[in-house]
Amino acid sequence: MNQSLQKLKTKMTEHELDLIYIDEPNLVGYFTGFESNPHERVLALFLMNNNIFLFTPSLEAKDAETHSSIETIVSYKDEENPWTIIESHLSSYDQPIKRMGIIENNLTVERYNHLMHSTNAQETMDISSAIQDIQLIKSTDEINKMKYAGEMADKALEIGMNALKVGISEQEVVAEIEYEMKKRGISEMSFQTMVLFGDHAGSPHGNPGERTLKEHEFVLFDLGVVAEGYTSDVTRTVAFKSVSQEQKDIYEVVLSAQKAAQSAVKPGMTTGALDEIARSIIEEAGYGDFFTHRLGHGLGKTVHEYPSLSKGSTMVVEEGMCFSLEPGIYIENQIGVRIEDCVYVTADGCIPFTRTNKNLITL
Amino acid sequence: MNQSLQKLKTKMTEHELDLIYIDEPNLVGYFTGFESNPHERVLALFLMNNNIFLFTPSLEAKDAETHSSIETIVSYKDEENPWTIIESHLSSYDQPIKRMGIIENNLTVERYNHLMHSTNAQETMDISSAIQDIQLIKSTDEINKMKYAGEMADKALEIGMNALKVGISEQEVVAEIEYEMKKRGISEMSFQTMVLFGDHAGSPHGNPGERTLKEHEFVLFDLGVVAEGYTSDVTRTVAFKSVSQEQKDIYEVVLSAQKAAQSAVKPGMTTGALDEIARSIIEEAGYGDFFTHRLGHGLGKTVHEYPSLSKGSTMVVEEGMCFSLEPGIYIENQIGVRIEDCVYVTADGCIPFTRTNKNLITL
Repeated sequence: MNQSLQKLKTKMTEHELDLIYIDEPNLVGYFTGFESNPHERVLALFLMNNNIFLFTPSLEAKDAETHSSIETIVSYKDEENPWTIIESHLSSYDQPIKRMGIIENNLTVERYNHLMHSTNAQETMDISSAIQDIQLIKSTDEINKMKYAGEMADKALEIGMNALKVGISEQEVVAEIEYEMKKRGISEMSFQTMVLFGDHAGSPHGNPGERTLKEHEFVLFDLGVVAEGYTSDVTRTVAFKSVSQEQKDIYEVVLSAQKAAQSAVKPGMTTGALDEIARSIIEEAGYGDFFTHRLGHGLGKTVHEYPSLSKGSTMVVEEGMCFSLEPGIYIENQIGVRIEDCVYVTADGCIPFTRTNKNLITL
Repeated sequence: MNQSLQKLKTKMTEHELDLIYIDEPNLVGYFTGFESNPHERVLALFLMNNNIFLFTPSLEAKDAETHSSIETIVSYKDEENPWTIIESHLSSYDQPIKRMGIIENNLTVERYNHLMHSTNAQETMDISSAIQDIQLIKSTDEINKMKYAGEMADKALEIGMNALKVGISEQEVVAEIEYEMKKRGISEMSFQTMVLFGDHAGSPHGNPGERTLKEHEFVLFDLGVVAEGYTSDVTRTVAFKSVSQEQKDIYEVVLSAQKAAQSAVKPGMTTGALDEIARSIIEEAGYGDFFTHRLGHGLGKTVHEYPSLSKGSTMVVEEGMCFSLEPGIYIENQIGVRIEDCVYVTADGCIPFTRTNKNLITL
């Protein structure tokens, strides 16, 4: 039993659970070593006090045997009802299930209903925060994987910057970056690669399209890769040919906010305090209304983990946490600037996973 | 109010619902025209008898106003509790919600709990099948989009075949295909592009990796693109240099099964009967145990829609349905062959979205 699974077992005992059910593919991968996306089919880990099994679609059973750390694989064919097989397998253990741990922010109502029927459980408990706790503090091994993912993200930025020329479209730059990444063995990006030109970056969640690059505008890159099952995430905004003083001024405000937050990171403070440090700098410069999202988010196996760095959040920063610091200023139809590093927390500060220069780069 | 929303309204009346709640991003896009992936944030459509609003994260509010067909946009900031805002907005309508329609196979238990609290609903009904009904029969406009997505998938196959050479890796071929697609304006593939060489294709859901190509082996391509919000999906298995008689024989069995199913498609028959036609051919050839998945699945906005073409499925084929026909034979660590076209059903047969030759191509 690997270390993460051992921790989950401890949580199960602590919370007096008879069964923990996990069907989120990333978490199944985290706890079993078997990484797979079953789409609408059922791939789930069933952890009990004396038993554990991995339930898979039959077309994944062989792969699961090879790659997972779990010995017992139970599978079902497309034409079979998975819940009938689960019910019969559970009953073979002859251990009544009273209290069941589930992940409420991932489990669907449909599967919840099936699960309650198949287990005869009397009550459920949300184990999301227990799992976030297990994943919150990264091991050296995990941080090493994230460092590599960060290096590849720096490489991706370099490729993107080198691709810039008058008339190229956002999506062509995205294609160039992802092609070069794939050639280097990166089969998946952390999320849809963002390359946004000029006014197009004024919407913080725009999509790269056919917009072509002109001189004297900003280019916003927001990207990350998945490497060995761990993610990176980085944002840089660069100038394509010289930009105006106003553009530079906005850039400097965001940069100050980002650097201030990054150099303030220390175990013992709250994540809300970090948001406040960045936000107050942007507010004092008069752009408070244009920083429309939280300062950052945790990352690890995904880019959507704990902690959240939002206004007022009270989670205490600890050594081994990994999160993004990504202030931005967005003026609709005009300009968008965001600068982001993800960092891991050390005993007395933090170290970024990405190293690309943050001073304004003019290409 | 667009046509899809009008149909949803009719379903609401039929089922005596006071509110329909939808937060699956693809469906929000289908019903409102606003395509966005909010990740863990809440993006949801609230449809009532006399009111309708789209609830969005504040950083998406402007885009939603521009792109959605819904006039009332209600939004929340990261530091706010979305459910408090939803509760207060709903109460402003002063219309009691007794019966609520939800999508059980997508709604999470967490959101279900919040929703029950915010609406004070007394009962819920699963509207999944009502929505699948609305989406099941594609309009001419939808089929035209899918034809274009099919053309691009054919193009992707051509690019992939042209890239094959001794020593190239699976992931390099994937990179080449996706790069050329991005250059043609395709920003998203329908699913992770599959390129599998020789014995590696013996697992029906393998992942492309560093395996390099040798002469006299099969190459399996399974890919699709998203174009104008609609998907394509196609599989071809080609021979790289001459292959053995045994390889050819297996190919011919799969081809017969695929062609037999495709030429049998007709309104009025069941999808289970189509599965049976393909499966019996493979069984008679002695490979029944090696065809380990269903014959096909519906597709449209996603590649996971109704109908399912599985053993025993009783859904009746109708004009305007779109689905895959994809028999395969997989012998672990030896060989994998799959051939797939997706088709749309006409009054007296079906027409494929993809046109790449299905006779064995030797490169």
